[in-house]
Amino acid sequence: MGGEFLHWLQLVGVGVFALTGALAAARRKLDIFGFALLGSVTGIGGGTLRDVLLDIGPVFWVADPAYILVCVAVSTIAFFGVPYLARSEKILLWADALGMALFCVLGAERALEAGAFAGVALVMGVMSATFGGIVRDMICAQLPLMLRQEIYATCAAAGAGLYILLARLGISEQAALLAGFATAFVIRAAALRFGWTLPAHRGLGD
Amino acid sequence: MGGEFLHWLQLVGVGVFALTGALAAARRKLDIFGFALLGSVTGIGGGTLRDVLLDIGPVFWVADPAYILVCVAVSTIAFFGVPYLARSEKILLWADALGMALFCVLGAERALEAGAFAGVALVMGVMSATFGGIVRDMICAQLPLMLRQEIYATCAAAGAGLYILLARLGISEQAALLAGFATAFVIRAAALRFGWTLPAHRGLGD
Amino acid sequence: MGGEFLHWLQLVGVGVFALTGALAAARRKLDIFGFALLGSVTGIGGGTLRDVLLDIGPVFWVADPAYILVCVAVSTIAFFGVPYLARSEKILLWADALGMALFCVLGAERALEAGAFAGVALVMGVMSATFGGIVRDMICAQLPLMLRQEIYATCAAAGAGLYILLARLGISEQAALLAGFATAFVIRAAALRFGWTLPAHRGLGD
Repeated sequence: MGGEFLHWLQLVGVGVFALTGALAAARRKLDIFGFALLGSVTGIGGGTLRDVLLDIGPVFWVADPAYILVCVAVSTIAFFGVPYLARSEKILLWADALGMALFCVLGAERALEAGAFAGVALVMGVMSATFGGIVRDMICAQLPLMLRQEIYATCAAAGAGLYILLARLGISEQAALLAGFATAFVIRAAALRFGWTLPAHRGLGD
Repeated sequence: MGGEFLHWLQLVGVGVFALTGALAAARRKLDIFGFALLGSVTGIGGGTLRDVLLDIGPVFWVADPAYILVCVAVSTIAFFGVPYLARSEKILLWADALGMALFCVLGAERALEAGAFAGVALVMGVMSATFGGIVRDMICAQLPLMLRQEIYATCAAAGAGLYILLARLGISEQAALLAGFATAFVIRAAALRFGWTLPAHRGLGD
Repeated sequence: MGGEFLHWLQLVGVGVFALTGALAAARRKLDIFGFALLGSVTGIGGGTLRDVLLDIGPVFWVADPAYILVCVAVSTIAFFGVPYLARSEKILLWADALGMALFCVLGAERALEAGAFAGVALVMGVMSATFGGIVRDMICAQLPLMLRQEIYATCAAAGAGLYILLARLGISEQAALLAGFATAFVIRAAALRFGWTLPAHRGLGD
């Protein structure tokens, strides 16, 4: 049942990230295949990097084609439906926050299961949560959202960290996952709502 | 013999993609090592991603150094020969079309052989055909050709799809490969020749 | 003892590359997590690509969390210490040269140990030495340093090539590593000091 639960969480996470990819495609005025490509890369990018780095066999979407189907379906719906979405910039930010909160705990979970150290699992959580969006923004040749936005990686680190701590303390898997997810999402939501930022570096004067 | 045939097709595909990388290096006015680097990354990028995601041991060019030699040789020839190529933008587009048509069927073939589902093999075909060019354009910090060009990914999907269908129907391997290759190349050639495009998204008005 | 020696060399290489990532983050005026992210990606990027392509199990920093700790520590120190560094552009170039010289021999060493051909080991050396910086610059959406700078990849190829030659001739491992490292670093240092470049391509006139 735990595996089933994780599977559904991951499908939702892939779907919302695919939506953010499709919205980026809309801003670039791409055709439907550009939507499918950016949607898929963003949806499966983070989990793909996680599986490749942990070297745990073929990546998750090779073993189960449902993930690709979700990406293509979401991208297609977005292509035809986006004109009717009034404030898509906001939708992008909230969908991105949801995907980030899901993937930071799922990434850490997969790493712990593969026998990784806690510190490495934390990095895997942050990577899973951020890599899809980084590739999306690199393909669009712009500075990644997570480097421009309010405490993005901080939220992913907090969610993954709390999950790892609770999992090590022996809390039930689902409770630990939900606590980590909720922590990441709430901090990010508050940052979006209230404009929280960390102090930026003053630069080098050059 | 089938393996030998695939080997030669892949060498040709790597070579024509390396040529497109070298032409991109020429436009950026790079030195000969910049040519070799961009040529190699573009030539082997798509197949590398395919092998890493399928997790089928060291990637193809680690097992056989001929691929790297081809990339370096093509890049070197392009460095000294490009000034005499009159209309290199056209050459880039046609070499790219040839490489795309070769790699979409080769990517799908390798995925099917590794036991992947048909839908996953289709994605692998499209990825193999497009990833080298995406990385080439990301390194040059510009929006990837395939997101700007006429129905690029569509051609790769059509070629890979036809190959997978024929292979599943039990057609001989070589006939299926050639049919898929020809389909992808002819659609792409027609798109280049007649300026076919798919309707683009109208954007978000922001 | 050889393994211990390699481990320390790699930690130093990861640390100096992380410093170059943190300096790039300073130029972009990022917050402390932006520093940690760019620092980590730059520090571990090249070795990660090497391990994934050779398919030799989980990548090096998954097996040993010290590498991530070094990246985060260096990035944090840079975040608070950079304002006091007067001429950080110079520091970036020299740290980058040091990391490049270390990783070109370490990449080739790991490839030879995995049973790769000499030509493939050369490519792995160059990739290990350059990939972290390429990703750093791609994330910052600018043309990679190594495509703009004096004979960068040439130095890495010279260092990796000499190491491979000496290792094949049966010279002691440490002597071969140091000779390759010194060669790469000295050529790069001379190129930086005296402004050496290779002749660039004249471009395509378009």
